Amino acid sequence: MKVSIVITGTEFTYGIKEEKNSRYIARKCLEKGLDVNGIGIVGDNLYNIQYYLKMALDKSDIVILSGGLGATTDDKSREAISEAIGVPLIYHKEWLEKLKKYYREQEREITDELKSMAKIPYGAVIIENPVGRAVGFIKVLDDVNKVIIALPGVPSEMKPMLDIAFSKLGLKEDKRKILIIRTFGLTETEVDKTLKDSYINDYTLNSSPKGVDIFITDNMEENLKLKEKLLKKTLGKYIYALDDTEMEEVVGRLLKENNLKISTAESSTGGLIASRIINVPGSSEYMEGGIIAYSNEIKEKILNVKRETLEKFGAVSEETAMEMVLGVQKLFSTDIAISDTGIAGPTGETQTKPLGLHYIGFYNRGNLKIHKVIYKNERNNTRLFISQYALNLVRLALL
Amino acid sequence: MKVSIVITGTEFTYGIKEEKNSRYIARKCLEKGLDVNGIGIVGDNLYNIQYYLKMALDKSDIVILSGGLGATTDDKSREAISEAIGVPLIYHKEWLEKLKKYYREQEREITDELKSMAKIPYGAVIIENPVGRAVGFIKVLDDVNKVIIALPGVPSEMKPMLDIAFSKLGLKEDKRKILIIRTFGLTETEVDKTLKDSYINDYTLNSSPKGVDIFITDNMEENLKLKEKLLKKTLGKYIYALDDTEMEEVVGRLLKENNLKISTAESSTGGLIASRIINVPGSSEYMEGGIIAYSNEIKEKILNVKRETLEKFGAVSEETAMEMVLGVQKLFSTDIAISDTGIAGPTGETQTKPLGLHYIGFYNRGNLKIHKVIYKNERNNTRLFISQYALNLVRLALL
Repeated sequence: MKVSIVITGTEFTYGIKEEKNSRYIARKCLEKGLDVNGIGIVGDNLYNIQYYLKMALDKSDIVILSGGLGATTDDKSREAISEAIGVPLIYHKEWLEKLKKYYREQEREITDELKSMAKIPYGAVIIENPVGRAVGFIKVLDDVNKVIIALPGVPSEMKPMLDIAFSKLGLKEDKRKILIIRTFGLTETEVDKTLKDSYINDYTLNSSPKGVDIFITDNMEENLKLKEKLLKKTLGKYIYALDDTEMEEVVGRLLKENNLKISTAESSTGGLIASRIINVPGSSEYMEGGIIAYSNEIKEKILNVKRETLEKFGAVSEETAMEMVLGVQKLFSTDIAISDTGIAGPTGETQTKPLGLHYIGFYNRGNLKIHKVIYKNERNNTRLFISQYALNLVRLALL
Repeated sequence: MKVSIVITGTEFTYGIKEEKNSRYIARKCLEKGLDVNGIGIVGDNLYNIQYYLKMALDKSDIVILSGGLGATTDDKSREAISEAIGVPLIYHKEWLEKLKKYYREQEREITDELKSMAKIPYGAVIIENPVGRAVGFIKVLDDVNKVIIALPGVPSEMKPMLDIAFSKLGLKEDKRKILIIRTFGLTETEVDKTLKDSYINDYTLNSSPKGVDIFITDNMEENLKLKEKLLKKTLGKYIYALDDTEMEEVVGRLLKENNLKISTAESSTGGLIASRIINVPGSSEYMEGGIIAYSNEIKEKILNVKRETLEKFGAVSEETAMEMVLGVQKLFSTDIAISDTGIAGPTGETQTKPLGLHYIGFYNRGNLKIHKVIYKNERNNTRLFISQYALNLVRLALL
């Protein structure tokens, strides 16, 4: 079944707030085997919402709208739906009673605006709001055999209500018809070529500083299994996850399994590697801590990098990366340690050291290796790439 | 002028990737005084892209499309535009030569797919790609007096190319008709009440762990100035920025102005505070570095937190936060130092220490204060809130 998603909110068409509901809803649809053919994000304007709704109804079997069901002036979705489908709004009696009781208990007067949160199109089925006051609804358009699901925009209300709506419609968890493969270490072109050479066609690539993600769809689950097997063989160690898992989670799991402790000494990434490791719940089992050694003085004083090393080779050098990683390993007495030093930009390059030049030190139970990496991008993308590179070194070593 | 934005990418309709370009483009439109009436996000499907494009053209004067201009099989935007407007694609000769030269230098064969990155609709003007190989274009539809701007989806390419497109169209920076006020320390309800009490109506609030952002629109610039003045008085120190500026940038500017150095000792936030400080270009002028002291052992060994303190009061205590901040200040010899220790969750609470309990140590040139904060949210939201809280302490002290 085809789905269109409509999100309302002028904060989104102004570009002043990140819109996150559409991604959540789209992902849930994917899990139910529903095919999202488009997402419309539209300001709080009655005419525009109607326009997008009609278009969505034209294209899809199910339209999921989120936002604009509250009680303030910019909440226009009920009215827009009512006008778009030509069905009047009525009060849902029980929900209205619930609202009245709520505001009585709060010792607040219930205004017409507040009452409007109990309105639904005639013939619609309500979706109870387990958290807030605005009621959602499912309206089936019998004549065209289409369905509108209306949900509030507040994520903590929308999320459980979407589940309720799906279960009311009898949509069960579908066997996933999508294969996700996350890789690091190959360019998008290289991944593309690998897929083409494997005669795989229906795929999407997503390239970022974190690597290249592959998404393959196939209606036949067996075919997906076959493709997974093939690509696991071809891409091998480049694959770090077969689902949404982040690199830091993979690394965390490997550290835990091997009962190893890690520490970090960061210059260019300035705490990003540690922060990513600590993002994972339970990371205290393997993360000892880290040093952010942004200045030369600190590299010397805390990490025991020799002054001569800094003077002779500079802060961005193989030698400094090496002494940093040895310093932090000694300080924290960990099995594994990472260090980095580099020029993330936008300034800082020299005649001999280009923008993006980084050295990553990797210590693994007595073994030491320094990796030279050049990656030029926006400052924070570069730092993200370097953190991913460093975490990937840990992953590869523990495979 | 009315604008519609069309974003292509099956990764977005699958809900597997965060879509960020539309927000950026919408924001840029706002700054140019352009009115975005809708954003369409559509998978890499020729028919669907065409459908959204036609709808966008129907509704708007300018359609900005981003994505699908590359050389892989899922890049379908050129073709979709060509078919939607009934104008054939041709090679842009100079760009094609550029591509040929590039691949010759790379010693790679130039395939038809790679060549297609030089294709534009007949009569279109190219937008040079300063970073990548895919060319963008502006196509004016004379008969209906509408414009299509086509840009790649890679943010680092899209962003400068959007600027080029706007300047080619002669769109100048508009006097901003929007007032942005970023606050920290008040709840959304408190901010809402303040605005209502000031008889301000046309606003949108955006609440996050970083605080409450206020967006006020008004067609009259004078009115906006008046409202700004009023709110600056009412909200006072709660305001940390009057534009998009992040807290770490404000803090960075204040540290630089006062010629002060900072260091951090993080437990709960695990490097997030340092990472945010170092996000700001030029931060090496004031950021000395930090310690991520996730384990008790490291708190003792590196930060000199006394074993008795940890045993008697626990790692999450006022006393530990104090010894941590004193330890890191001494280690890095900085004017200002921050420490934090807490329970970010989802586990770790005890009978006396609830989930979300944090102690933040703040040292400022001889003065020391420990702040007790309880904030319960998703693990990473809590860590973001604590980092914002800590940075805000620095801001308040240096105002």
